[in-house]
Amino acid sequence: MDDVFRRDCPARVVLDHVTRRWGVLVLTALDGSDLRFYELRDRIEGVSEKMLSQTLRTLVRDGLVLRTVEPTVPPSVTYALTPLGRGLTTSLRTLTTWIRDHAGEIITAQRTYDGISVE
Amino acid sequence: MDDVFRRDCPARVVLDHVTRRWGVLVLTALDGSDLRFYELRDRIEGVSEKMLSQTLRTLVRDGLVLRTVEPTVPPSVTYALTPLGRGLTTSLRTLTTWIRDHAGEIITAQRTYDGISVE
Repeated sequence: MDDVFRRDCPARVVLDHVTRRWGVLVLTALDGSDLRFYELRDRIEGVSEKMLSQTLRTLVRDGLVLRTVEPTVPPSVTYALTPLGRGLTTSLRTLTTWIRDHAGEIITAQRTYDGISVE
Repeated sequence: MDDVFRRDCPARVVLDHVTRRWGVLVLTALDGSDLRFYELRDRIEGVSEKMLSQTLRTLVRDGLVLRTVEPTVPPSVTYALTPLGRGLTTSLRTLTTWIRDHAGEIITAQRTYDGISVE
């Protein structure tokens, strides 16, 4: 995995997109079902429309998310995982499951650190 | 995994630490061997000393990384994964391996998007 440490390595660029503040949450949200823009915004607490829009554009460009516009009035825009995005989200699930299972231990570590550290 | 979408959920806070710009790269670097500060800085292209220092402090506080100071002159500081950090890094490896294996497909998607999109 040495290449992810190189600034110009494609894998590092992709890692950067996926691990950007909102990327993981958008991919995880779409793992459950296809969603519209406002559904994503409501589901992911704290994301601004600007950041969500920017994150979605990056993920669509990466071929991980598919944006479908239906010609209704007003147009209905839906976001869904592509097969490539579904593969990635499966790998992400290993990570998010680990984090959920170990969040308690990490909170305990933070409290211990805050009690001991003089910084 | 609904809880990661809530702003105040511990799992979301941890997810945020891990997926912060440099967190994944620091954890992945330490997966190979224990390293000193300057070794990490040299290994991860593009990270500033300030950002690296901040990332390490967060990961130490989370109980994922252990900071050891040896009383030499000058003091020698080494960073290593804790058992908790090792568990996380194993989950991360699934993700980084997927990304490395599929980076080519993603680059192709980006090129297609850039050629087609009128935005």
